[in-house]
Amino acid sequence: MVVIDILEDIFMCNILVGQSGGPTAVINSSLYGIISEAFGSSDIDTVYGMNNGIEGFLQDKVYNISEYFKEHSLELLKSTPASFLGSCRYRLPEDLSSSVYEDIFARLHDYNIAKVFYIGGNDSMDTVSKLSRYAQINGIDISFIGIPKTIDNDLVLTDHTPGYASTAKHVATTIREIALDASVYEHPVVTIVELMGRHAGWVTAASVLARTSYDPNPMLIYLPEHDFDMFKFVEDVRDAIKKNNSVIVCVSEGISDSKGRLICEYGGDIGTDTFGHKMLTGCGKVLEKVIKNDIGCKCRSIEINLLQRCSAILASKVDIDEAEVVGRYGVRAALDGATGKMVSIMANRNEDYRVLYGLIDVDRVCNREKKFPKEWIVGNGTDVSNEFVEYVTPLIQGESEVRFENGLPVYLRPVYS
Amino acid sequence: MVVIDILEDIFMCNILVGQSGGPTAVINSSLYGIISEAFGSSDIDTVYGMNNGIEGFLQDKVYNISEYFKEHSLELLKSTPASFLGSCRYRLPEDLSSSVYEDIFARLHDYNIAKVFYIGGNDSMDTVSKLSRYAQINGIDISFIGIPKTIDNDLVLTDHTPGYASTAKHVATTIREIALDASVYEHPVVTIVELMGRHAGWVTAASVLARTSYDPNPMLIYLPEHDFDMFKFVEDVRDAIKKNNSVIVCVSEGISDSKGRLICEYGGDIGTDTFGHKMLTGCGKVLEKVIKNDIGCKCRSIEINLLQRCSAILASKVDIDEAEVVGRYGVRAALDGATGKMVSIMANRNEDYRVLYGLIDVDRVCNREKKFPKEWIVGNGTDVSNEFVEYVTPLIQGESEVRFENGLPVYLRPVYS
Repeated sequence: MVVIDILEDIFMCNILVGQSGGPTAVINSSLYGIISEAFGSSDIDTVYGMNNGIEGFLQDKVYNISEYFKEHSLELLKSTPASFLGSCRYRLPEDLSSSVYEDIFARLHDYNIAKVFYIGGNDSMDTVSKLSRYAQINGIDISFIGIPKTIDNDLVLTDHTPGYASTAKHVATTIREIALDASVYEHPVVTIVELMGRHAGWVTAASVLARTSYDPNPMLIYLPEHDFDMFKFVEDVRDAIKKNNSVIVCVSEGISDSKGRLICEYGGDIGTDTFGHKMLTGCGKVLEKVIKNDIGCKCRSIEINLLQRCSAILASKVDIDEAEVVGRYGVRAALDGATGKMVSIMANRNEDYRVLYGLIDVDRVCNREKKFPKEWIVGNGTDVSNEFVEYVTPLIQGESEVRFENGLPVYLRPVYS
Repeated sequence: MVVIDILEDIFMCNILVGQSGGPTAVINSSLYGIISEAFGSSDIDTVYGMNNGIEGFLQDKVYNISEYFKEHSLELLKSTPASFLGSCRYRLPEDLSSSVYEDIFARLHDYNIAKVFYIGGNDSMDTVSKLSRYAQINGIDISFIGIPKTIDNDLVLTDHTPGYASTAKHVATTIREIALDASVYEHPVVTIVELMGRHAGWVTAASVLARTSYDPNPMLIYLPEHDFDMFKFVEDVRDAIKKNNSVIVCVSEGISDSKGRLICEYGGDIGTDTFGHKMLTGCGKVLEKVIKNDIGCKCRSIEINLLQRCSAILASKVDIDEAEVVGRYGVRAALDGATGKMVSIMANRNEDYRVLYGLIDVDRVCNREKKFPKEWIVGNGTDVSNEFVEYVTPLIQGESEVRFENGLPVYLRPVYS
């Protein structure tokens, strides 16, 4: 027995997991998958978590996750939205000889980490890429695996990204409810709903699912992949309001004109985040003013804002489950020796919807964006095609099982709080 | 048998129901209660519905509801948000000798209507008051009953108003999710959430329920019943951000300064609706700019907008059920001969929460507002007391049972669409 214990200690490794970028409804489901898989593996000893991603790790903000879940419900993690470990928007230096890398690897050595899992979007994959390259160059035997997440669905080389489907479901449901609310008066009203997605139209496109046999709304859908023309927009709305008293217009936060100027910039200055990305917000308000001035009818703009990414209540069951499996798959891949890879989803939509998981080189993913296909934009830039509906419909199936207590949802206390 | 049929025809009456003012998550549950009660009553023949309230009725926009539900699911009405019959914001003339009243009563006579039910808030109760007074003065035997609804909870002489509890549950849940999302970064961030409720603080106060053992947010809550001071506000936020990296501030759309000037007016012009009420929106954006300028930290403002009143997904079961019973009670009261009354809810919160229903003179309700009690505002105008928590907690209990098909909620097609 003693010999076996010693042997186990020798062959068992510790793992480290971090979350980075904007939260989603299911990013913690991927974390749940990683932790569950690790707890069930005889090859893994302790699971550590970085608080606030790689930025926090540099400050030694590390938690012993294995200890934590001796006293807390791991199951509850699966239905808790946002980032249980905290997050960051931190860009590692381009120069791999920077002392930042020495700091990171010294710390990884201190915790005896053999596998690192980083859950995030394209900026986070940049982190995975740099760390795996550093390890390779310096002959360090640590695996780095990227676990995809983003509501924007803009990661390349994966059919879709965990997090997107729940946002799609939230957007479609919410627009359907807004459409009902906005249709009750007999006087014409235009409702502009501004949606997230940065420079990709996937989130906004999902609003098409809100349509019913009795309500054509959203009647107009504008994505960033199609140049936005303000004069045409006013004419589009004018035509729509002739057909229906209530017109819902869904616009992506990232729409821009043919000169590349963002519509939200028409409203004044905008800021940037630490990755140098512009803070895209406010195009709905700009368009509201234009409609009020040019058409003169009642017009309201709604920014769904954080709700579209942090609502566990409207998370998709397919998304929750896929996010978990992506995490589990990453752990198994790392134990098989993979590094510098991102877990990818391949989908088969012939007859039943089925997915397979695979690995792709993280270098091929990071700092790239998968745009909404131009051929799926129809109606002269005001609608999306049925091909998209067929693409997205399987993803939003099934409802989440959030626990309610005393009338409100119960979520797991974040590790950092 | 023939004699009985004839007698039934003589004693049976038709009823008319309308909805007015802003939609809620449960206004259709009251309609469901009225229709179900009527369908089960041997005293009532046909149920008619006004499309777009009294304004539509004046244009003869009337539907035969009894016919409609021979082909549609009445049960589905109960979980469908917004106003199934359409709505209006129409003020009847103060002068009861106006020809508008003759038009209305001639039309009521045409449809052989004996009982009218009007589901709405304080403006709608004004309609009930005028019509019942006209009938009384002119010796016309038609009953007019007000069925209360408003998310604002500002109707007097009722413990609370159907519609409020579902908004309270939506607000508390949503703020809890936003708080999780907003806490993931290590850098200080202020999130300002603007909530509805007009000049009453009930909706905004419900945000207090979002607090958990691990998250003090919302740390600051500002209601319209307390004068808003911009300098103090900045100091409040400065103090809060010293205690917690993420500060959620919940503000009512109707907050104003000590001179009575609305904070949303600081941002520019605002419009008015047909009742002459100011369109209150935008104070969140005003405060966001102030925080960015004066404190300089990251600050975001979120307007939950229509979602807080039209979300069936987060409706409270207690609210759905009470809204139904209020409708049923109104029908029984009308059949007993009541008129010029609004159904009122009396609640007993000793030990178990229990409610009783009663009638009050609609004249005592209309055009008045029940403000949030000043003695429940604590923390020098930045918080609400535990008395309020005890008041609101029983109201948000239980979850709705929305039917999902193909990943999305199924709602009943509005009668007017």
